[in-house]
Amino acid sequence: MNKYIAELIGTFWLVFGGCGSAIFAAAFPTLGIGFVGVSLAFGLTVLTMAYAIGHISGCHLNPAVSIGLWAGGRFPTKQLLPYIVAQVVGGLIAGGALYLIATGKTGFDVSAGFASNGYGEHSPNGYSLQSALITEIVLTMIFLFVIMGSTDSRAPHGMAPIAIGLCLTLIHLISIPITNTSVNPARSTGVALFVGDWAIAQLWLFWVAPIIGAVLGAITYRFISQETN
Amino acid sequence: MNKYIAELIGTFWLVFGGCGSAIFAAAFPTLGIGFVGVSLAFGLTVLTMAYAIGHISGCHLNPAVSIGLWAGGRFPTKQLLPYIVAQVVGGLIAGGALYLIATGKTGFDVSAGFASNGYGEHSPNGYSLQSALITEIVLTMIFLFVIMGSTDSRAPHGMAPIAIGLCLTLIHLISIPITNTSVNPARSTGVALFVGDWAIAQLWLFWVAPIIGAVLGAITYRFISQETN
Amino acid sequence: MNKYIAELIGTFWLVFGGCGSAIFAAAFPTLGIGFVGVSLAFGLTVLTMAYAIGHISGCHLNPAVSIGLWAGGRFPTKQLLPYIVAQVVGGLIAGGALYLIATGKTGFDVSAGFASNGYGEHSPNGYSLQSALITEIVLTMIFLFVIMGSTDSRAPHGMAPIAIGLCLTLIHLISIPITNTSVNPARSTGVALFVGDWAIAQLWLFWVAPIIGAVLGAITYRFISQETN
Amino acid sequence: MNKYIAELIGTFWLVFGGCGSAIFAAAFPTLGIGFVGVSLAFGLTVLTMAYAIGHISGCHLNPAVSIGLWAGGRFPTKQLLPYIVAQVVGGLIAGGALYLIATGKTGFDVSAGFASNGYGEHSPNGYSLQSALITEIVLTMIFLFVIMGSTDSRAPHGMAPIAIGLCLTLIHLISIPITNTSVNPARSTGVALFVGDWAIAQLWLFWVAPIIGAVLGAITYRFISQETN
Repeated sequence: MNKYIAELIGTFWLVFGGCGSAIFAAAFPTLGIGFVGVSLAFGLTVLTMAYAIGHISGCHLNPAVSIGLWAGGRFPTKQLLPYIVAQVVGGLIAGGALYLIATGKTGFDVSAGFASNGYGEHSPNGYSLQSALITEIVLTMIFLFVIMGSTDSRAPHGMAPIAIGLCLTLIHLISIPITNTSVNPARSTGVALFVGDWAIAQLWLFWVAPIIGAVLGAITYRFISQETN
Repeated sequence: MNKYIAELIGTFWLVFGGCGSAIFAAAFPTLGIGFVGVSLAFGLTVLTMAYAIGHISGCHLNPAVSIGLWAGGRFPTKQLLPYIVAQVVGGLIAGGALYLIATGKTGFDVSAGFASNGYGEHSPNGYSLQSALITEIVLTMIFLFVIMGSTDSRAPHGMAPIAIGLCLTLIHLISIPITNTSVNPARSTGVALFVGDWAIAQLWLFWVAPIIGAVLGAITYRFISQETN
Repeated sequence: MNKYIAELIGTFWLVFGGCGSAIFAAAFPTLGIGFVGVSLAFGLTVLTMAYAIGHISGCHLNPAVSIGLWAGGRFPTKQLLPYIVAQVVGGLIAGGALYLIATGKTGFDVSAGFASNGYGEHSPNGYSLQSALITEIVLTMIFLFVIMGSTDSRAPHGMAPIAIGLCLTLIHLISIPITNTSVNPARSTGVALFVGDWAIAQLWLFWVAPIIGAVLGAITYRFISQETN
Repeated sequence: MNKYIAELIGTFWLVFGGCGSAIFAAAFPTLGIGFVGVSLAFGLTVLTMAYAIGHISGCHLNPAVSIGLWAGGRFPTKQLLPYIVAQVVGGLIAGGALYLIATGKTGFDVSAGFASNGYGEHSPNGYSLQSALITEIVLTMIFLFVIMGSTDSRAPHGMAPIAIGLCLTLIHLISIPITNTSVNPARSTGVALFVGDWAIAQLWLFWVAPIIGAVLGAITYRFISQETN
């Protein structure tokens, strides 16, 4: 049970911190943190939680990660569903907390985006569905490849949280203009439900693409890391 | 006694470095460091001191952290008061040093803010008292959760300063526009006394909310980390 | 064989992530990541892959690195050619993937640069051939010096990916305005072939200079690190 | 002898990378790295070299650090002078290399500053001599305090390069607007000689203040870290 609470709190932190930095601080006049700050924030949610709860739940914080690790032979089937439920619930609670705080400022308008992911006319810089699909698949594929590799018993001990957290920062540095960056269905769901409308209509891509990418990345790492060489 | 001097110097560094970066460098024309730089600065004060004095005093640098660790069963009651006194004194000396340096520039005006924390009309972006309260509670709660988790004996050894320092960076990336970010009563007090007026009138929130959050976060971690599962 | 696939994937990631951040996110209006973000992205591609595949292939991701390590006595001659081929192929696949994604936005124009390296009139800030040559040699020289040193058995274990990745970040912080920063022939080749024209005409420098620098840096480290003192 | 070559190369890197990032990339239109990027660059020169040559020379790269460590009982008297000579020579070679590269761009004017340190009318933001003096003393004091503490045998092994490098980043985040940040006489000398005039006339402060601060910081740490408590 502790595992699931840990995943819920961790995913809460990922969505609260990552999307929160985007909503509150990215576009502050002159001093705002921009996409660099948002990228750093998303990565640091994972880095910090991985050191805090890695020893409790493994710190997935992401249905695509749980599914990828399962495909890579690192995660048991029976825990897949409860992990995903805990992650989505954590993401939704974060979305609610962000909404509550954001409404404390006059003029807040959730339909301005609320850090939702999108493609086509809802891509921050107007990238097509196809670009979004390729981007999310490729990025989640490498994300899982890095997660599998840096937690390999042959990799340096205790450094995986840095590698994985900063990999998520890197992923955001590349792709915020394309899809606002998901690679994480729980993160996308956590804010999309508050935006409704188009954000929910486009939500499917941010479940499908990350999961496809995650499975590909985990299987690829599993294949090339075999000793029989 | 060495513990208390270490906490005093460490908290001096947190306030001097964090608030100093905000006062001197954040809004420099064109090249200024903005909120990203200030966020990085606050986090690095903790990261650097945690490696420097973690083995001497535990490097709390924050009354809310000391109280949270006490609530989490990690810090003895009898040291609570001297730690808090040392932290507040360190913060005030830092405020004084910053004031001394800042007055060496023509046109310095302490009432422009001096990196003080605030809500309502003194929130950098106009967030309400309620938003400020929720934000400071939630952020300090997760801060303590990460501190407890990353210093757990099951977490990777020697990495907690990175997790905790960068958690403070992340906290600032999210919330500077809301309250100018406290999560630390000593930091708030260290500069508020030089601003006086509204900064002192609003100071209560930056003692109450961080302490509530800290206790909640530490207790939550203590609860979910128990082996009896 | 696994080594070569790992190098191919790793170099794909270096070019996809580094050049991708430049192409998609650097100049986004107001919120763009600028050269700081691109520098961080390039460094993090190496940091993340070094933790993911360091134990498989050594994670060179760069023909100049492979040649430098060979000159420094750390890499066998017979693996030099296959490593370089895998790196260049990985870079080209990344260039192709970036091209595919970039064309999903109306108005994309590959001749605007596509993150290619250049000098003279194709230097981002108009630096001469001589400046470009000195810069690329010096930077790759120190890069290899840091790689040799941080992977020395006397250096702290498991930290080389951080030192090497952030060294590449630092290299970019210095030199994007001069040559758009190469220090890596595979990275230059991966995007230059899609730009054609001047990018290919100037490509020679980004093979010659990094390789000269790499050999000098590796030999220098080898010389000064000898115990016989 | 290897120690001295290592210090020379390391200090070359500190000045070439730190000042180079300021000269070439800080003020690039729209995409420039600003003070955040320069701060990161200075810190990363030390982080990278500390992993590369820490096991050879201790990686001081700074006369104030060598003198501070000597005052703190960590560095032998007889090596003080050769270390300082190597550091200053390394800084000067870096200044020369930067000058050579910078002249490859039309319109380069060394008298615009060339990353020199200054106070009063040569402070980037007009801070007085007194502000400069206090700032450089305080920052170098804490710098040595962190160096002494993070290399203490009781601190986590292998992490000091991160603590020390990022401490230098933090120092720059605070103080570039005040003095352009020195805390290092070799760094100041390496570029001041090329600017001449006021940069040389003000150079004394960037020897005196860092050395005073370094001695104070090292002695303070030595005092409070004693076991006899």
